[in-house]
Amino acid sequence: MPFQYLEYYNGTTGLSVGVNRVLFSEQTPFQKVEIYETDTWGNLMTIDGMVMLSEKDEFVYHEMIAHTACFSHPNPKRVLIIGGGDGGTAREVLRHASVEHVDMVEIDEAVVRASKLHMPAVGAWNDPRLHVLYENGLTFVEHVPVKYDVIIIDGSDPVGPAVDLFKQEFYDKCAAALTENGVLTVQTESPFVEHYHESMRSVSQALKNTFALNRPMVVFIPLYPTGMWSLCFASKGIDPLSAEVAARAEAGMRVFGSELKYYNPDVHKAAFALPNFVRTLFG
Amino acid sequence: MPFQYLEYYNGTTGLSVGVNRVLFSEQTPFQKVEIYETDTWGNLMTIDGMVMLSEKDEFVYHEMIAHTACFSHPNPKRVLIIGGGDGGTAREVLRHASVEHVDMVEIDEAVVRASKLHMPAVGAWNDPRLHVLYENGLTFVEHVPVKYDVIIIDGSDPVGPAVDLFKQEFYDKCAAALTENGVLTVQTESPFVEHYHESMRSVSQALKNTFALNRPMVVFIPLYPTGMWSLCFASKGIDPLSAEVAARAEAGMRVFGSELKYYNPDVHKAAFALPNFVRTLFG
Repeated sequence: MPFQYLEYYNGTTGLSVGVNRVLFSEQTPFQKVEIYETDTWGNLMTIDGMVMLSEKDEFVYHEMIAHTACFSHPNPKRVLIIGGGDGGTAREVLRHASVEHVDMVEIDEAVVRASKLHMPAVGAWNDPRLHVLYENGLTFVEHVPVKYDVIIIDGSDPVGPAVDLFKQEFYDKCAAALTENGVLTVQTESPFVEHYHESMRSVSQALKNTFALNRPMVVFIPLYPTGMWSLCFASKGIDPLSAEVAARAEAGMRVFGSELKYYNPDVHKAAFALPNFVRTLFG
Repeated sequence: MPFQYLEYYNGTTGLSVGVNRVLFSEQTPFQKVEIYETDTWGNLMTIDGMVMLSEKDEFVYHEMIAHTACFSHPNPKRVLIIGGGDGGTAREVLRHASVEHVDMVEIDEAVVRASKLHMPAVGAWNDPRLHVLYENGLTFVEHVPVKYDVIIIDGSDPVGPAVDLFKQEFYDKCAAALTENGVLTVQTESPFVEHYHESMRSVSQALKNTFALNRPMVVFIPLYPTGMWSLCFASKGIDPLSAEVAARAEAGMRVFGSELKYYNPDVHKAAFALPNFVRTLFG
């Protein structure tokens, strides 16, 4: 029976999306995972009543969190994705021919199962370079046998199982799990929503404490609260705004640029240009 | 009695905002103008059931539509605003010390009256350089006695009285009303909403036909559909991405930069970096 999905995200402000039917609904040991068939956005996944992605808008988040990281590193071979169970971030990472091995560490197998069933085109599940591990990301990064060139933290909001992904301890471990040239990207909520600000400052401060370089960015995601979403980039020294990175991104566009719907080298640079109130927020 | 304001904007996708009470509601000869006291966004104006601005998020739209135009022109003295009855665009224009005369041509006096009553801080109503005229913008631009350096088209959506602001004829008249160095900005809806695409292409084509230079931009507006909004810049030759414009913007920031919440010279440049799907849309 059709109904309106409603998600309040900023006091009494909310998003409403018309749903034709519920395709998946499971209370897992970690969270409630649901997939809805919508009128406008294709199939849409929520976790604990918060939109994670829709088939129609997922390209923004996945292209931006993956390519800003992978083009910044000069030769990314080993990539770790924490979370990312829908498969979209891995799909974008795997466009990079240099990438030999991707570990996707998803705490909840139900997210992967639901995605494969109801949004199969989001993932690149058959790529032999992709290794899916159902583990807790926080404990996984404690004992990494071989270091990674890129770590992407594609977790859900800082409530439920993802709350530890917003803490100092986790970023110290990530830094230790990264190679000398290592780079990291992480999703850090909406600057327009005040109740996220504490978590955002917490991540930002942790990245500053741990990494030589830390640059927040902003991207347009229509189904996330307020439509403005922040991601943070951090590295042991590589600057995502350097001429070398721009040149690599330009070269990459000649290989797979025509397959992308959001990312291009101009947008890469532009994402790091922060409105004044966002600059103030990240400090 | 508190209720949820609900605006469907993309099929069955909508925005819901908690309203404490209705402060203003009037069916004018042109449209229905309402102001709500909200829980989260201060007072909020809607026209014909579409959000125009809230006190908390209006800074984005007004700073971006005004400063991208006013810093692009080397010495803006005379500015024409079509629409803009809430006063926010004029407020930002009037920060520019070179500006001597602003004509704000608003078709509906009720918009100005409602704004002065219920969001008085949005306008700079006491500035003697501001001249408010209650006329139809389309006919006003037909017989302009003295030309303008800057025209800003701050109309509502392409339904109701603003529909003509999306047509070729109007842009021809604007070009004729602009000085040789003249620049123009206009709001052009959300790239994520398909039913706007025809209007967006129509404006974009009209600007291409009429002006030497035409550059769309995108800005984050949380209460507008999808949170991603486009504006178009057009000029008789001035490029908003030139080094001269950047230098003027930098100089301007030393005068009033600390009063702005969104605009800065980096954001000015970044707004013109279009995601691939937006590039395709504007062609």
